[in-house]
Amino acid sequence: MTKGRLEAFSDGVIAILITIMVLELKIPEGADGEALRKMLPAFLTYVLSFVYLGIYWVNHHHMLTMTERINGKILWANLHLLFWLSLVPAATAWLGESHGAVLPTVVYGATLLGPAIAYYILQNAIIAEEGPGSRLGAAVGKDYKGKISPLLYASAIALAFVNPWISDALYVLVALMWLVPDPRIEQRIRGNGQTG
Amino acid sequence: MTKGRLEAFSDGVIAILITIMVLELKIPEGADGEALRKMLPAFLTYVLSFVYLGIYWVNHHHMLTMTERINGKILWANLHLLFWLSLVPAATAWLGESHGAVLPTVVYGATLLGPAIAYYILQNAIIAEEGPGSRLGAAVGKDYKGKISPLLYASAIALAFVNPWISDALYVLVALMWLVPDPRIEQRIRGNGQTG
Amino acid sequence: MTKGRLEAFSDGVIAILITIMVLELKIPEGADGEALRKMLPAFLTYVLSFVYLGIYWVNHHHMLTMTERINGKILWANLHLLFWLSLVPAATAWLGESHGAVLPTVVYGATLLGPAIAYYILQNAIIAEEGPGSRLGAAVGKDYKGKISPLLYASAIALAFVNPWISDALYVLVALMWLVPDPRIEQRIRGNGQTG
Amino acid sequence: MTKGRLEAFSDGVIAILITIMVLELKIPEGADGEALRKMLPAFLTYVLSFVYLGIYWVNHHHMLTMTERINGKILWANLHLLFWLSLVPAATAWLGESHGAVLPTVVYGATLLGPAIAYYILQNAIIAEEGPGSRLGAAVGKDYKGKISPLLYASAIALAFVNPWISDALYVLVALMWLVPDPRIEQRIRGNGQTG
Repeated sequence: MTKGRLEAFSDGVIAILITIMVLELKIPEGADGEALRKMLPAFLTYVLSFVYLGIYWVNHHHMLTMTERINGKILWANLHLLFWLSLVPAATAWLGESHGAVLPTVVYGATLLGPAIAYYILQNAIIAEEGPGSRLGAAVGKDYKGKISPLLYASAIALAFVNPWISDALYVLVALMWLVPDPRIEQRIRGNGQTG
Repeated sequence: MTKGRLEAFSDGVIAILITIMVLELKIPEGADGEALRKMLPAFLTYVLSFVYLGIYWVNHHHMLTMTERINGKILWANLHLLFWLSLVPAATAWLGESHGAVLPTVVYGATLLGPAIAYYILQNAIIAEEGPGSRLGAAVGKDYKGKISPLLYASAIALAFVNPWISDALYVLVALMWLVPDPRIEQRIRGNGQTG
Repeated sequence: MTKGRLEAFSDGVIAILITIMVLELKIPEGADGEALRKMLPAFLTYVLSFVYLGIYWVNHHHMLTMTERINGKILWANLHLLFWLSLVPAATAWLGESHGAVLPTVVYGATLLGPAIAYYILQNAIIAEEGPGSRLGAAVGKDYKGKISPLLYASAIALAFVNPWISDALYVLVALMWLVPDPRIEQRIRGNGQTG
Repeated sequence: MTKGRLEAFSDGVIAILITIMVLELKIPEGADGEALRKMLPAFLTYVLSFVYLGIYWVNHHHMLTMTERINGKILWANLHLLFWLSLVPAATAWLGESHGAVLPTVVYGATLLGPAIAYYILQNAIIAEEGPGSRLGAAVGKDYKGKISPLLYASAIALAFVNPWISDALYVLVALMWLVPDPRIEQRIRGNGQTG
C-alpha cells in the first residue's frame, strides 16, 4: 500500500485545521484600538495553536519520510491522530474567549494531550510494520521529547485547577521545546541520501 | 486517463468535510461544566460522523489502490458519492441539535444511505471498466458488508418512527462493523506486492 | 514548468468551494417537516451549483490531461477562472434565500457567465502555448458547447427581468447539456493510450 | 528531504485561505440593488486580497520550481509565511466592513508587510541551503520588486494616519506591480528545459 494518499489526506486535514481557526477570530466590532485590544487573547491563543499544528505537520512529515510501508492499522491510527487535531480549533476558540478560566484551560490541555498520545500510537503502528531495526525505529529510540510532552500536558491540566496561567505557561513551554527540530532525525535523513 | 487527480480531488473534498464539521460544534457559551455538558450530544454526533467519513476515505483508498483505469463515467460516479458525503456535516449538525427527534434522525440516516448506494454505483462503474476478472472485481465478489449496510440504514430510517434511539444504535453498529478493515482486500493487496 | 502544482492548487480550490457551499445550508430551526421544507429552495440551488462546479472540475481535468506545457500566463488565466468560481457559493446562498427574485437570479447568472468566459481564456492560453496542431487544439476545434453556453447564460440574465423562473430553467438546461461528457475528447484520450 | 509535501501543504493552505475569504462576504439582506451596493467595498477588498494571495502562490510556485533541496529550517520559514498569509482573510473582512477607517487600513497593511518579510526569509533560507551560485540565487539576485514592496507597505501603513485612501491606492499599486510575472525567472526556467 502506498503512503502517497496518506500524506496527501493528512496534509489536507492539517492545512484546513490550521486555516479554519482563523475563521474563529471574530472581526473587531468597530474600527478603534479598543476593539483590536479585545481580540488580543484570542489572537495569542490562535498563534499558539498555529504553532502546535505546525509542529505536528513537521513531525508527521519527518516520520513519514522514513516510512516505507503502510497498512490498514496505520491508516486508522493516522485518522485517530487527525481526529484529536480536529478538536484544536474549537478548544482554541473557547480558550480565546475565556482566558484564565479553569475549564477551557483543561479542555485545551486535553486537546494537546490527545494528539500526543495518538501520535505515539501511530509511531508504534509504523514501527510495528517496519520493524525496530528500521530507520524510524532507530531514530525515535531515544525520543525524550515524545515521552516528556504528555507528562507536561497532564501536569498542565492538573495545575489548571491551581492557576490556569501556570498551564498556559506550560503549553507555551512545550511548544518552544518542539520548535527546535529534532537534529537526530534530520541528520539520519541527510546521512541516507535520497529520501522522499 | 490517470487516477491521480481523482484521488487528489476526493482526498481534498473528504478532508474538508471531515474538518468543517468541527465548525458546527458551537463553542460553549460560558466557561463552566454545564456549558460543556450541553455540547455532549453534538460532540458525540460529530465523533460518529468523523468515523463514517473516515470509513469512506479508507475504503475509497483501498478501492482506488486496486483500480488501473478510469473514465468519464467514473469521474461522475465519484462526484455523486462526494455529493452525498457533502450532506453529512449539515445532517450531523441538525441531529446534534435535536437528538432524539424523529426527522433529524431520518435525514441523518438518509445521508448515510445515499453514500452507501453511491459507493456501490462507483464500485460497479470501476468494475465495468476493469472487467469482472480484475483484482477489484474479485476482491468485492463476496462483499457482504456493502450489501448489508444499505439494508441496515433503511431499517434504521424506518425504525426512527418507532424510536429514534434504536436508529442511533444501528448507526453506531454499522460504523463498528466497518471499523474492522476488510482482511480480504488488504490480503490481496499484500499478496500482489507493489501496489500503489 | 510543471503542471502538477497547477492541477493540485485547482483541485484544492474547487474541492473547497464545492464543500463550503454546504456551510451556507442553514440548519433547520426546529425538528419538524415544515422546517425541512423551508430549506428546499436553498437545497435545490446547492445541488445545481454542486453540479456546475463538478462540471468545471471534470472539464478542467480533461483539458489539463491534454496539456503538456504551462507558463506564467496560464497560471494567471487559471487563477482568473478560480476567482469566478469562488463567487459561486455566495451567489448560490443569495439565490437560495430569495428564489424567484430578479437580482439574485441575475447575479447567479453572472457567476456562471464569468467562469465560462474565464475557461475560454484559459483554453486559448493553453492552445497558444501548445500550438493549434496540439491534441487540445484539435479536440476543442468544434467545441460547440463552450460557444453556446455563454450565449445561454447571457440570455438567462436578460430573461430574468421578464421572469426569473425562465432563467432558472435555462441554468438547469445548460448543466444537463454539460453533464454528458464530451465523447470527442475522451475518445482522443483513449486513442492516444497512456495519457496522464 | 523531498519538497513534494512542502508544496502540497502550501498549496492546501493558500487554496483554503483564498476561498474562505468568500465566506466573509456576507450575503445581502434583501434582493434589491441597494443591498448589493452595500456589499461593494467588501467585494473590492476581497478582489484585492484574492490577487495578493494569487501573487504569493505564483511566486511560491516559481521559487519552489527552482529549489532542489529543503531542510527543517525551510519547513519552518514556510510555515511562518503561511502564518502571515492566514491573517489576510480576517484583515480583509475588517477592512471590508470599515473602509476608510485608519486602524483597519493599518492592520491590512501589516498583514501585507508580514508575508513580504516572511517570503524574504524563506527565500534566504532556500538560498542558504542551495548556495548563492544556484539557479534561485542567480534569479533573485536583482530582485528589485521584493526589496521595494516592503518599503511601499511600510509607507502605506504610515500614510494611513494621513489619509487611508492613499494607503489603499498603494496596496492596489503594489498588487499591479506584481501581477506582471518576473520575466527573468520564467526565462531561466525555460532556458533550463525540464524543470519540475
